[in-house]
Amino acid sequence: MDKLQIVKIGGNVIEDRKALLEFLSDFSNLEGPKILVHGGGKEATQMAKKLGVEVQLIEGRRITDAQNLEIITMLYAGKLNKNIVAQLQALGCNSLGLTGADGNSILADKRPSDPIDFGFVGDLTEVNQSLFKLLLREGISPVCCALSHDGKGQLLNTNADTIAATLAAALSSNYEVCLSFCFEKDGVLSDLNDELSIIKTINEEDYINLKSKGVLHTGMLPKLQNCFMALKNGVKQVRIGSPKMITETVNYTQITN
Amino acid sequence: MDKLQIVKIGGNVIEDRKALLEFLSDFSNLEGPKILVHGGGKEATQMAKKLGVEVQLIEGRRITDAQNLEIITMLYAGKLNKNIVAQLQALGCNSLGLTGADGNSILADKRPSDPIDFGFVGDLTEVNQSLFKLLLREGISPVCCALSHDGKGQLLNTNADTIAATLAAALSSNYEVCLSFCFEKDGVLSDLNDELSIIKTINEEDYINLKSKGVLHTGMLPKLQNCFMALKNGVKQVRIGSPKMITETVNYTQITN
Repeated sequence: MDKLQIVKIGGNVIEDRKALLEFLSDFSNLEGPKILVHGGGKEATQMAKKLGVEVQLIEGRRITDAQNLEIITMLYAGKLNKNIVAQLQALGCNSLGLTGADGNSILADKRPSDPIDFGFVGDLTEVNQSLFKLLLREGISPVCCALSHDGKGQLLNTNADTIAATLAAALSSNYEVCLSFCFEKDGVLSDLNDELSIIKTINEEDYINLKSKGVLHTGMLPKLQNCFMALKNGVKQVRIGSPKMITETVNYTQITN
Repeated sequence: MDKLQIVKIGGNVIEDRKALLEFLSDFSNLEGPKILVHGGGKEATQMAKKLGVEVQLIEGRRITDAQNLEIITMLYAGKLNKNIVAQLQALGCNSLGLTGADGNSILADKRPSDPIDFGFVGDLTEVNQSLFKLLLREGISPVCCALSHDGKGQLLNTNADTIAATLAAALSSNYEVCLSFCFEKDGVLSDLNDELSIIKTINEEDYINLKSKGVLHTGMLPKLQNCFMALKNGVKQVRIGSPKMITETVNYTQITN
């Protein structure tokens, strides 16, 4: 099977122009089939403020009402996605930006409004493998933003980690997939105050232990659940670390079954 | 050669939700390979106002500075393009949204700043036929917004009529292309106050005569020039009329050599 790299970048890379350009240069240097998945960062909140659109939070989680979905669509699928694609082209990496609606690539159901109505948020149901295979075969790297659709005309805000993991899982029947989650640390830390305390490997047993000890912070829990889901579905390698790990020999956290 | 329909819609359809849904339903019913090209409408100006971004005009033409380009990218490539694609998917028409940067599909040079600096505006130089052929062969309809790129990382605002005509010209070496410009009238009118005064056909000689008589209004001149360019480059049929002409037997203006 051919190798496929799926790399997810989050807000910390997206929001720092220099870091983003460095990352895109590294990504464009990766050999073979590759997919980029990007989050959105804090700009959606800033844009909502500028446009006088209220951002509602329930239990610390953002509600995606119609106006906020419009802002997310403008920023994620428009500004961020297209500037990333234009930059990759300049670096000689032929890429193509996608929401889940494009080519019917990523389908989701709107999350049930009970017990909490999160608004236009999607829970993934299906990946259209054939489109990804078609593009990759032509040497085109898909660049996916954090939007899926329900097939009935509705775009849906979807966690970028979940998109990356679900894509990796779906494509692992055709490729030997390496999934890299890039974030602001060099790996999962055992001590948040010590940047060097990188945990080398985490398996499900470790996860349960670390969670019960309170070592894993809130955002890391769903990220790790996505990692285990990907591994259970045949993804060959899953790792969490800094963007540098995709081209350099640096430390990172390897997730294992 | 296979037939290919290229349909361009402008602001009047984009801005009217009911008209847009009707058009998309008609478009999705067209048989065979098809491409949709859409303009942006007036929302970019409204959004600039909301965000406190100045819109400069020189000789009645909009200047695309960096901030306005960002707004255009958010609206055209984000909000408008992705909602059109999601809607087409709901109608059973597999489509995929593109800027010129996606798949390196449409290349342009930034317009020279002398004599007037229009900012980030692109003059088209090249269409990547292979991407369009690849998508069309798979039964995927490209949905192009009015953005090209320079291949060096810069997105460029580009007239949607010109994109439609240039695409039609480029693809006419592989397809028998019918190019339809849809706008708010049933065709080019000989009397702007008489909606029924549709000119049946216009060739280049008619164009010169109508222009000298002042029958053709400002926006129609570049549109017709795009039509003649398309015909000279092998496009089989070029017409201007209402969106209804793509599925119904209605009057329209046929442009001929």
